[in-house]
Amino acid sequence: MGALHKGHLSLARIAAEENSEVFVSIYVNPTQFGVNEDLDSYPKTWHTDISMLEDLDQELGREGKGRITTIFAPTNKVMYPTLPPDSTLPGTGSFVTITPLANLLEGKSRPVFFRGVATICMKLLNVVEPECVYFGQKDVQQTVVIKRMVQDFHLNTIVRVGPTEREIDGLAMSSRNVYLGERRRKVGIVLRQALQAAEAAHKMGKCSRDDVLALAWDVTNQMSVAQDKLSEDTRAKFEVDYVSLADPDTLEEIDEVDDTKGAVLSGAIKMLPLESLKDGEKLGLGEDKVPVRLIDNILIPPRRP
Amino acid sequence: MGALHKGHLSLARIAAEENSEVFVSIYVNPTQFGVNEDLDSYPKTWHTDISMLEDLDQELGREGKGRITTIFAPTNKVMYPTLPPDSTLPGTGSFVTITPLANLLEGKSRPVFFRGVATICMKLLNVVEPECVYFGQKDVQQTVVIKRMVQDFHLNTIVRVGPTEREIDGLAMSSRNVYLGERRRKVGIVLRQALQAAEAAHKMGKCSRDDVLALAWDVTNQMSVAQDKLSEDTRAKFEVDYVSLADPDTLEEIDEVDDTKGAVLSGAIKMLPLESLKDGEKLGLGEDKVPVRLIDNILIPPRRP
Repeated sequence: MGALHKGHLSLARIAAEENSEVFVSIYVNPTQFGVNEDLDSYPKTWHTDISMLEDLDQELGREGKGRITTIFAPTNKVMYPTLPPDSTLPGTGSFVTITPLANLLEGKSRPVFFRGVATICMKLLNVVEPECVYFGQKDVQQTVVIKRMVQDFHLNTIVRVGPTEREIDGLAMSSRNVYLGERRRKVGIVLRQALQAAEAAHKMGKCSRDDVLALAWDVTNQMSVAQDKLSEDTRAKFEVDYVSLADPDTLEEIDEVDDTKGAVLSGAIKMLPLESLKDGEKLGLGEDKVPVRLIDNILIPPRRP
Repeated sequence: MGALHKGHLSLARIAAEENSEVFVSIYVNPTQFGVNEDLDSYPKTWHTDISMLEDLDQELGREGKGRITTIFAPTNKVMYPTLPPDSTLPGTGSFVTITPLANLLEGKSRPVFFRGVATICMKLLNVVEPECVYFGQKDVQQTVVIKRMVQDFHLNTIVRVGPTEREIDGLAMSSRNVYLGERRRKVGIVLRQALQAAEAAHKMGKCSRDDVLALAWDVTNQMSVAQDKLSEDTRAKFEVDYVSLADPDTLEEIDEVDDTKGAVLSGAIKMLPLESLKDGEKLGLGEDKVPVRLIDNILIPPRRP
């Protein structure tokens, strides 16, 4: 969807290491934004995107890797040639739906999201017919939905998943991070820390849902309490949407980590708008007035693969 | 879906005239049958199907045409590799939906039908990646849905439509016709006659919906009255599901035939079970105890193409 950051570039780089030609699509897909979501304000940074890709392509050339041969930035009319893109439910148009996967986790608060994602990916895969397609681990549910779509519809492509790129403090890179000023940024890493605490619990031998997730909830609760105690012009409040321990193929919640399958630890929080600002404080795009949803995840690998 | 008749064979023949290799799929797709529809009793005639295709292939060989190189008869597990085929609404699984097209005409009485059709056709097209795919004009709504799917999802195939094959009396060939005994067969041609009457009205210069369809309704009404007057052991009652005059691309009902676009005249009737039987009467499969839905259509071509 453009607004490229290091996460996107790392995927293009992996693609160039595994293939001779890399096709990059940049398309802000309307059908994956709910009617009350941020389609209109989604960051669009076309010129920076292009020069980032050009720089990367130069580098790839020097390194003798595959090259970025195409940047595909279609209009809505190309991707939705008959009826205009509709993101209402049930809505009109031609859609791919992947249930119940698309209704879990992110899908609960974003009911049209994965319908839009699956639909546009099906179209893009048909346009490009790529040998491999690359997605980032950050959007773990997206990777599961796309893998399921590829399997169920017998699409002739290999789905590859590149690791989540992170800021130095561990925050997962996201195009929406530009909306976070310094204050919300600092608190936003609570999600990463909570998931790491749960991961640590599992590494120390915990397997039951309650034992694993209790440590994640401790982290978010402590941060929540800490923010509550601060004054309005120094705190950044947030809400936890979910913390999940799920089956890696179905994303159904599990009571116990199955050592042969591993699990997905994931979560989403909503950084609320700042209540009051301090003079000279470093603000994000939109002056920290809009809520920002952050997601992150950690894969628990199988122990006996 | 197997239960091959001359209509299917004519499509294979057209395909062999236009291509060097013809791939035939035979698969009774569960997701296009509603839970109360005839999935279990749908005619399965595997051995006859194979020998009909073998005979046709021999003929094609003698004529120097393209050949039938593959008969693809997958299991449900191949076509639905993750979740089992579900034909409930909303149901679980990976589906293609084409709305509002799929909700009109046939879709009104068969709400899961075109979801199942679009889904299985997407899968088959991905498995085969054919240059051309062949459908029969008899299922006109299916042809419109598939064309829309191919356009909206940028599928790399050409949709070709072969003419409806008919019995000598004009009844459109259908795998379900085996359920019609002699008595219901004779009355069943009322649908064809009604559509022909409407077509004739248009040819004589009528363009408005009411003027065109009035003649079709006259035919069905007269047949209905005639049957009502007969005794239970000589009549065959039927219900008209719809008679439609629609836009050829959207299948929306139209008030006036647009000479630049033409129109689709279509209809569906339900042949009811016979009320009482006569000794020695020629019965259909299932002894004419099940209702049988018949569909048919006539394309009104554009006048100024």
